[in-house]
Amino acid sequence: MSGLKNDRFIRALLKQPVDKTPIWMMRQAGRYLPEYRAVRSQAGSFMDLCTNPELACEVTLQPLERFDFDAAILFSDILTIPDAMGLGLYFSEGEGPRFERPVRTAADIDRLPVPDPELELTYVMDAVRLIRKNLQGRVPLIGFSGSPWTLATYMVEGGSSKSFAKVKGLMYEQPQLMHRMLDKLAQSVAAYLNAQIAAGAQTVMLFDTWGGALATEEYLEFSLRYASQVRSLLNTSCNGQEIPTIFFTKGGGQWLEEMAKTEFTALGLDWQTDINLARARVGSRVALQGNMDPIALYAQPEVIKAKVATILEKYGVGTGHVFNLGHGILPDINPEHVKVMVDAVHDLSVQYHQ
Amino acid sequence: MSGLKNDRFIRALLKQPVDKTPIWMMRQAGRYLPEYRAVRSQAGSFMDLCTNPELACEVTLQPLERFDFDAAILFSDILTIPDAMGLGLYFSEGEGPRFERPVRTAADIDRLPVPDPELELTYVMDAVRLIRKNLQGRVPLIGFSGSPWTLATYMVEGGSSKSFAKVKGLMYEQPQLMHRMLDKLAQSVAAYLNAQIAAGAQTVMLFDTWGGALATEEYLEFSLRYASQVRSLLNTSCNGQEIPTIFFTKGGGQWLEEMAKTEFTALGLDWQTDINLARARVGSRVALQGNMDPIALYAQPEVIKAKVATILEKYGVGTGHVFNLGHGILPDINPEHVKVMVDAVHDLSVQYHQ
Repeated sequence: MSGLKNDRFIRALLKQPVDKTPIWMMRQAGRYLPEYRAVRSQAGSFMDLCTNPELACEVTLQPLERFDFDAAILFSDILTIPDAMGLGLYFSEGEGPRFERPVRTAADIDRLPVPDPELELTYVMDAVRLIRKNLQGRVPLIGFSGSPWTLATYMVEGGSSKSFAKVKGLMYEQPQLMHRMLDKLAQSVAAYLNAQIAAGAQTVMLFDTWGGALATEEYLEFSLRYASQVRSLLNTSCNGQEIPTIFFTKGGGQWLEEMAKTEFTALGLDWQTDINLARARVGSRVALQGNMDPIALYAQPEVIKAKVATILEKYGVGTGHVFNLGHGILPDINPEHVKVMVDAVHDLSVQYHQ
Repeated sequence: MSGLKNDRFIRALLKQPVDKTPIWMMRQAGRYLPEYRAVRSQAGSFMDLCTNPELACEVTLQPLERFDFDAAILFSDILTIPDAMGLGLYFSEGEGPRFERPVRTAADIDRLPVPDPELELTYVMDAVRLIRKNLQGRVPLIGFSGSPWTLATYMVEGGSSKSFAKVKGLMYEQPQLMHRMLDKLAQSVAAYLNAQIAAGAQTVMLFDTWGGALATEEYLEFSLRYASQVRSLLNTSCNGQEIPTIFFTKGGGQWLEEMAKTEFTALGLDWQTDINLARARVGSRVALQGNMDPIALYAQPEVIKAKVATILEKYGVGTGHVFNLGHGILPDINPEHVKVMVDAVHDLSVQYHQ
């Protein structure tokens, strides 16, 4: 990978030989780091931080100063697209993300624009460009978006949900309306990720955080179908470099075979999925990313090392594995424990790449 | 099944021929019924209702007056055992169940008694006896308990949890302590279910509501192992009648093969699991119970009937299927929609039993 000092992450995704298993961590730029909390309190609201390219760049780079991560991931939110569609994203204390104007009717859906990322999400593209510049080829930069289905859940519910009664209600009652909305979202997400790639993202990841709330049939029809549509619209090379793509459905371990039929380079695994079985099921078609239980980072160093060793052993010999947690790191984890995990992955994985 | 006017439920569990697919519903005695809400407000607190055998009997029988269910399930809570262990169960508005004295240390665990169900959970056994008497053999009565792992999550967390940081922390850091606690819980659960069987429960179900929060290895070691221990201690016949047993891990669809290796008669399926694939995987060893998305009950009658038809078709021809939701019914569902589901299951399933 030209211009990259450490291309282990890209090589593992493309199943090229590596010296060690690469690692990065979902939410690696985040609240568990005191230096993040300092910038966050300086910025104002969470969205003030996301929309400020200089500060977004700063927090993106912070974890790389502390830990030997093999990739950086753009600091942003998964809900920037619905915000750019005019829904009015805000964050209320203890409640997570909310929308001022949720989507409920056919008229609401028809009114949704497909945002032009360079016009309406300029702050994201500026952050990508600035991060790439400041990374100076140290490690690759990952861009990302929420999946169409996951964006739709927040847009219809108006925020987080436990039962997804409103969005599933729409899906069961008016499937054609839901399809119209998801098609518009797939176009928007693809344009957004392509703009991130053009701005410098060297890999893109699609987060389907709530696909696991669906029954199999509905997962295939309302979530995976539109993730696959996004994938088919992505530019998978840029300036002569191949751009790997990663798809992650939390709670989707039962559907890996179906996911692997799409053209994503890699699949993310949550911690409930056995990575040994997952490799046997789909490892010939895709690379795998994951999948330590985020809660294991509360444990003492020896326990963390043992969990890392187990996952490396379960994946086994050869390339195609990017180590990660099975979900984002929690805000009250001791950063020293993250260091233990990162170093253990590098140290203990050498034997699987000889 | 001697003395039962409708033994369709028991026969399906035992894979004997039936005329129609039987159906009951998790939380069928509950808040979606106005007559339940009336008794509930008369009783006082939720625990006042659980501990009053006459009122518990009354609400257990209510749904049978409205709907053509093929089984009744004891009205109780999954946390009666830790309450009998002295942890002080209470319900706080909007927060769900809480314990006054959560379990945190080795001393806390060593102090836990194995309750004698006929002494310390008399109110449950009295309710079982009263319900059996009042059912007059109309349909069988299901007894139940939370699984050892699921009880442990509440006991250590002190209530509900999103991340299970405390109980998993204990599990990762002090696995031997966790095993001591789970062994004690398995003994308690088995004694409790055996007492329910002796009092008249004709089937028992073990609810592993939070097993799905675990990684595969930990699921096998800390959840399934103790569910299996409970099963091995159960009396599976009473007065010459076989007592079927059902095990349900919400979020456990990836582990059905492992679950089927235990001696439970049937496995419960959440709505994310494809019942057609589940039958192919484990249908030769166990009966299956499930698995409509509870949210589908918000939809209009025609949609509900179509979802019922799909699940019946997916299970296919023959006995061994008990229809249910994939999780408990939600409190704001229209009872008329439940009637649509129940009648559709009976009407549409005849063709699969000829």
